[in-house]
Amino acid sequence: MGMDDAVYRLLKHRLGEKYITRNPEDRVCYSYDAAPGQSFLPDAVVFPGTQAQVADIMRLAWEKRIPVIPRGSGSGMTGGAVPVKGGLVMALTRMNRILGIDTDNFIATVEPGVIVADLHAAVEKQGLFYPPDPASSAVCTIGGNVGECAGGPRAVKYGVTRDYVLGLQAVLPDGDIIRTGVCTAKGVAGYDLTRLIVGSEGTLAVVTRITLRLLPKPAYVATLAVCFDDMVTAARAVSGIMRRAVIPRCVEYLDEASLSLVRNQLQFDLPAQARALLILELDGDEALVKTQTEQIRVFCSQAGALDILTAGDPVQAAALWEARKALSPVLYKIASQKLNEDIVVPISKIPDMVSRIKTIQQESGLTVVSFGHAGDGNIHCNIMYDKADETQAAQARKALDKLFAQTLALGGTITGEHGVGLTKKAYLSWEIGDREQSIMKQIKAVFDPRQILNPGKIFS
Amino acid sequence: MGMDDAVYRLLKHRLGEKYITRNPEDRVCYSYDAAPGQSFLPDAVVFPGTQAQVADIMRLAWEKRIPVIPRGSGSGMTGGAVPVKGGLVMALTRMNRILGIDTDNFIATVEPGVIVADLHAAVEKQGLFYPPDPASSAVCTIGGNVGECAGGPRAVKYGVTRDYVLGLQAVLPDGDIIRTGVCTAKGVAGYDLTRLIVGSEGTLAVVTRITLRLLPKPAYVATLAVCFDDMVTAARAVSGIMRRAVIPRCVEYLDEASLSLVRNQLQFDLPAQARALLILELDGDEALVKTQTEQIRVFCSQAGALDILTAGDPVQAAALWEARKALSPVLYKIASQKLNEDIVVPISKIPDMVSRIKTIQQESGLTVVSFGHAGDGNIHCNIMYDKADETQAAQARKALDKLFAQTLALGGTITGEHGVGLTKKAYLSWEIGDREQSIMKQIKAVFDPRQILNPGKIFS
Repeated sequence: MGMDDAVYRLLKHRLGEKYITRNPEDRVCYSYDAAPGQSFLPDAVVFPGTQAQVADIMRLAWEKRIPVIPRGSGSGMTGGAVPVKGGLVMALTRMNRILGIDTDNFIATVEPGVIVADLHAAVEKQGLFYPPDPASSAVCTIGGNVGECAGGPRAVKYGVTRDYVLGLQAVLPDGDIIRTGVCTAKGVAGYDLTRLIVGSEGTLAVVTRITLRLLPKPAYVATLAVCFDDMVTAARAVSGIMRRAVIPRCVEYLDEASLSLVRNQLQFDLPAQARALLILELDGDEALVKTQTEQIRVFCSQAGALDILTAGDPVQAAALWEARKALSPVLYKIASQKLNEDIVVPISKIPDMVSRIKTIQQESGLTVVSFGHAGDGNIHCNIMYDKADETQAAQARKALDKLFAQTLALGGTITGEHGVGLTKKAYLSWEIGDREQSIMKQIKAVFDPRQILNPGKIFS
Repeated sequence: MGMDDAVYRLLKHRLGEKYITRNPEDRVCYSYDAAPGQSFLPDAVVFPGTQAQVADIMRLAWEKRIPVIPRGSGSGMTGGAVPVKGGLVMALTRMNRILGIDTDNFIATVEPGVIVADLHAAVEKQGLFYPPDPASSAVCTIGGNVGECAGGPRAVKYGVTRDYVLGLQAVLPDGDIIRTGVCTAKGVAGYDLTRLIVGSEGTLAVVTRITLRLLPKPAYVATLAVCFDDMVTAARAVSGIMRRAVIPRCVEYLDEASLSLVRNQLQFDLPAQARALLILELDGDEALVKTQTEQIRVFCSQAGALDILTAGDPVQAAALWEARKALSPVLYKIASQKLNEDIVVPISKIPDMVSRIKTIQQESGLTVVSFGHAGDGNIHCNIMYDKADETQAAQARKALDKLFAQTLALGGTITGEHGVGLTKKAYLSWEIGDREQSIMKQIKAVFDPRQILNPGKIFS
């Protein structure tokens, strides 16, 4: 393991001087992602521009047994892009071409480095729609989204990344290129390698080309901000909304602490006593959306809403979403460190989970901020602490144990969209049995018998 | 390999006399499925009633290296349930309980032997909806649907079986029980074993429990029968319909030969010159569906439709669907044998594919009947021949080669929903590369190193 000078010079020769670096400052920049507190220096960083270059790098890494860590923008929340064993960080950000948008067949073909917001803009310009929209969409790459099976608020109605990936091209750890899936609406020839690679956190193959299913762009979108004086009441309203025949495309929530962080950014006049906020979004035919919006208004006010505000124009709606999407980074205003988890519980258990989080907060004495995709039961729970304070850090870890235990007790999962990466490795066995993990590890060995691709992730 | 008397007696003791048989007539009944011309006798047939019994049978089969072929109703089209290497056919039809329908969380938990139509009826009674609806829904089991990743007409709007399976319980070839996936809307912990097992044609594990995602039942359904005087014109209309923002839930087509087979069953007065029929179905809010139906009517008449008939009531719509669903078995009226393929092409290539099928028919001199899920580009193409006539059989095989070659040339796949099984094994390499197949075979070996579960399928 490890990279010697000869390998470095060879890669430099093949990729070009500009596209490999081992300057200390560059190595630091690629030593971490958005997972708090996880950082390891890579030996070097490479920036391939083509699939052939990715294959070339992998062949060399395979031969020399050098760890390779594929990454996009590094916005992942669980340390999936952190080079825990050194080696080469492979940034795929240069491979950012949208290769085609097929308006007849509702398909886009893209390279992994395309920024998700750019993909949204490009397809929407053609009257099409790519639903997955993680909070980091302005910076994250589609390759990273495929690696983690990203979700985001619109998953309530439209599902997650997995539901839009029809086929892939990918480079195996030994440098061979494989093609999986189809570019048609259906396809079942052989085992489903496409969905096996989606969500595999860059541990099985380096995805170099993605065929995505698109939808027609919804004709109309209505955005509502619904205030409650209490988070549990808001959570009960969510369960109620989701039991109805109308499926909003988004049902987000912000608890009191989240709300206070972004309150000033909202272009809405929230009532002073508002302590929980739901953001609801409905889309589709304009007349139908308006009728459904009215139904949801009536339901929310019966469910105890303090106020129900409708975004008057796209600017007001955008401000609401910007505030929501800024929440994760803005949390550092509260404390220097967070344990940031994306648990999921069955929708009917949201009120229960919200109460249990409250208890965990009280018992720990820490600030616990939660917000997220309530319509999926997907709660982003942030346990805040001062990283310089050992007692607080220990309390935070204890609170985290309780959070996962309660989540699983309610029939939930420890991760809805962030993946396991580094930060949840220790908890994987709480959810997944030994035999199932053994199968997964053997599958890893099928793809990567030398364990060079993104080593040290997911499994303990 | 093979089963001795001691094993038979042991199984009889464990399962009970009624639930194992090796009578010649029973063995014949379980020697084939709906794939024409494929038949091999099993040594015995077992009917487990519980997951524990499935595990018990597998442990014994593992120890004695006896092939086990899990099956539901045997309605599969590619020989997936045929015991090519003898052994035990394991019919899961007794495990047919709907274990729960959770109306709060839109989830059903079922055993594999549940008939799909029974599942539809049960969830619809609760105001819910399970979209996948293969033509065999009145007889096929949900376990079989999971094994093949079944589709059906509603996939146009709603996707296929894979899109509704949240989690599984399954028995491994060595008898261990695994649990995969979640019972929540999202979940990404570890590799996606759930979708790996879906569509694996009973070769990786015996699925014993399935957690399904449900939707609210659509409030209103409109069913249209649209006639054309020519199949290519109809195919162009389909491409046109699919380019619009309205996504019907079904876009089926029947070519001239199909139409003539069921014409008398339809409760519609079709124009005499009708030589192609589209069945369109739209669902959702009543007012919106009516508006969209009108838009589609206008479009179809501009696209050259001879006549556009709306089902006046559910009975008329049901008769149309019964006729459509009866097509596959009724084809034997034309000839004693068929090669029945479920190719898929990109939607925009449907007119092209329809023309190519016409050419194949003319060149072969055989009757080629096609119908299917046009809205997905999923064409069920049936090459009819007299099985007693060697020349015709050879012509049919030649026509099949051309069919697959043309499909792949247009960017399609050799199977949209029937799977590879036995009948498409020889063609898998036309679509899937050596390296990709090698990965699949190694995954098979991870689950089933003794190759006892449904041996001889998918791979050559």
